[in-house]
Amino acid sequence: MVTVKKSCKSESARDSHRLQPSSNHENFQRTKERKLRVEMRFHASTISRVSQFKNRAPLSYQSSSQRRKRCNFGIAFDIDGVILRGRVPIGGSPRALRRLYGDSGGGIPETKRAKELSELLGVNIMFSQVVQGHSPFRNLLKKFENELIIATGKGDPTLVMSEYGFKKVVSLEEYASYFESIDPVSQYKRWTTMPLSDRKMPTLPRCDVSSERIKAVFVVSDPVDWGRDIQVLCDVLRSGGLHREANRNQPPLYFAADDLEYQAAFPSKRLGMGAFRIALESIFNRINPKGLEYVSYGKPNPFVFKNAEAILNQLQSSLCLDHSENNGVPRSHPFKTLYMIGDNPSVDVKGAQQAGRPWFSILTRTGVFRTKDNHAEFPADLVVDTVEEAVDYILKRECMS
Amino acid sequence: MVTVKKSCKSESARDSHRLQPSSNHENFQRTKERKLRVEMRFHASTISRVSQFKNRAPLSYQSSSQRRKRCNFGIAFDIDGVILRGRVPIGGSPRALRRLYGDSGGGIPETKRAKELSELLGVNIMFSQVVQGHSPFRNLLKKFENELIIATGKGDPTLVMSEYGFKKVVSLEEYASYFESIDPVSQYKRWTTMPLSDRKMPTLPRCDVSSERIKAVFVVSDPVDWGRDIQVLCDVLRSGGLHREANRNQPPLYFAADDLEYQAAFPSKRLGMGAFRIALESIFNRINPKGLEYVSYGKPNPFVFKNAEAILNQLQSSLCLDHSENNGVPRSHPFKTLYMIGDNPSVDVKGAQQAGRPWFSILTRTGVFRTKDNHAEFPADLVVDTVEEAVDYILKRECMS
Repeated sequence: MVTVKKSCKSESARDSHRLQPSSNHENFQRTKERKLRVEMRFHASTISRVSQFKNRAPLSYQSSSQRRKRCNFGIAFDIDGVILRGRVPIGGSPRALRRLYGDSGGGIPETKRAKELSELLGVNIMFSQVVQGHSPFRNLLKKFENELIIATGKGDPTLVMSEYGFKKVVSLEEYASYFESIDPVSQYKRWTTMPLSDRKMPTLPRCDVSSERIKAVFVVSDPVDWGRDIQVLCDVLRSGGLHREANRNQPPLYFAADDLEYQAAFPSKRLGMGAFRIALESIFNRINPKGLEYVSYGKPNPFVFKNAEAILNQLQSSLCLDHSENNGVPRSHPFKTLYMIGDNPSVDVKGAQQAGRPWFSILTRTGVFRTKDNHAEFPADLVVDTVEEAVDYILKRECMS
Repeated sequence: MVTVKKSCKSESARDSHRLQPSSNHENFQRTKERKLRVEMRFHASTISRVSQFKNRAPLSYQSSSQRRKRCNFGIAFDIDGVILRGRVPIGGSPRALRRLYGDSGGGIPETKRAKELSELLGVNIMFSQVVQGHSPFRNLLKKFENELIIATGKGDPTLVMSEYGFKKVVSLEEYASYFESIDPVSQYKRWTTMPLSDRKMPTLPRCDVSSERIKAVFVVSDPVDWGRDIQVLCDVLRSGGLHREANRNQPPLYFAADDLEYQAAFPSKRLGMGAFRIALESIFNRINPKGLEYVSYGKPNPFVFKNAEAILNQLQSSLCLDHSENNGVPRSHPFKTLYMIGDNPSVDVKGAQQAGRPWFSILTRTGVFRTKDNHAEFPADLVVDTVEEAVDYILKRECMS
């Protein structure tokens, strides 16, 4: 999602300050993920002016006459199928975002993701503006910080979790490497690079998998090796986290998303993490007496939208002038409207509907959803062709109100 | 399955001739498959004497007084979990088979599979004695010989199908290579499934995938890259075999097996082709208006047992003396008993039950099935600990009858 704090018309346009993200945000942008499907990005800027802040130091301003007032709306953009298709901007997204940024040119993104987006779209996006599907996993830190957990998915899932503060994360690939023949078709996989199990062999495994129980499993991003992952997850989840045991309580299982399909670079929709979950669940339920239990943090889970709203509030507070007005403590003002621009009715629109006010859903036709008429089961508040049209509508609606 | 033609007690024991497979059997043993899960092996020998034959030439014998009579029973062995676990003989299988062979030192196996088995077990096994899950695909040659078909699975599925006579086989991997970004996580894969022999990319695609429709899909052996295979199969099957089309009749889909789990080298059961089928079906049925249609040739499909019986008859006829008795035409004599020794009740026992007489099911405790009591849902005619005990039982039963 990307938020836009639209300043009031009275302020002058186009000036902007360089944004610097506050240092105490977790650096969850260092992941190697290049696909942007489950990410929601927050973009805080004003058409006229963006304040500069650093380490939550008092804000500096260009001139007192240009103090910015709080905006009462924000925008959350889905990325895949709305802003990008693979790495290609679509729907006039750079133009749409520049309208919101002004010619900001601003910011020094701290994380690779914000950097990538910035490069692709030609606008500066802070890492604090980017919310990824696995961001809510941070909320589980208290419970699993020092517990042995498995993380899996494309990119570097263990790095993602480590940066959230989890101390004992092992990748599914590494875990599997401790069990000979656990993947019955591994010998048919011809490695083009050295497999993890052969690289820098640690003198001691980082965990004793024969005695240390796995306490939770996190599917951080889209799995790459479905066959191996499904096999090993069935083993771990059926055995209560300790291999070769049986009939134990299933360790908690968390998914960062639940998209059945999504719009990637390929012209037609691709299977997403939701499809992987369906595959795992259908097999697990055939071989285990008890059905698979899991929690999915992805849209349309209302938690995602509440979380987005909270982050938007934080960004809002860090950019506006409320500090001086409340003894330095950010004052919380509810948004009048939060726009969700997405391409997937069953995920974006359904989620916004379930989250309720102040969410306003907008569907674009550049991704999963393509039809002329609104979606029958999850009709959006507005249907447009492109994200540019969506931004156009929002600005007109808000500026005229 | 392995058949044993038990000669009558009057014949002398332990002499044997070298077996040579007839040249007109399809050379379906050249696959690179190393897993033996769905294979059934036929083993034709007698405890006393094995005749030598070549190219269906008239049989030669040691002496006229030692002419062998037809046996009225045969044995079919499942391999994984009964005879081997991975590449390790179990349950006294070499001894069990030697009892059936005598000290045959037997045949010259023409195919790698028979060769591997022979090496592992210390007995000579002819390729004609080995029936693999995909062997029945040959029966579809008339329908698809010159049609463009996809084959997938571990080893070299295109080679398997080509050797059956199919002229236009493309591997799923090769097919996918013609569509950029068809696999959204391919850039994260540090391995490939392509057999080494195919690495040299052809200068021209062997088929024009944009215009030539896929007429059938064959899952020849256990898939290696589940994620990619499920994605591409969903694409092909939903589009009527021509990518990017929609709402067309699904091309036929054939599976060589349907084992949910099986006993491989790993101590606990591994997910089999049946699990892959469940995963594919559960996803396909969520994204396609019409449910997945497929044919599975693996056990417990009764066809497998009928096919085994026919092959056993062929072996029987080629070894015995009926040629001279019927103007050279093999005479068909029904077996009184056919023993199926397996480790998986829902596959081996269920199949034998559905096939009916003369099949007699025996369960061993060295594979999928491990409990003390007979299986509740698919009770076998006999339960033993090992294949050696099974053979012991059979020989006693038959020799005393």
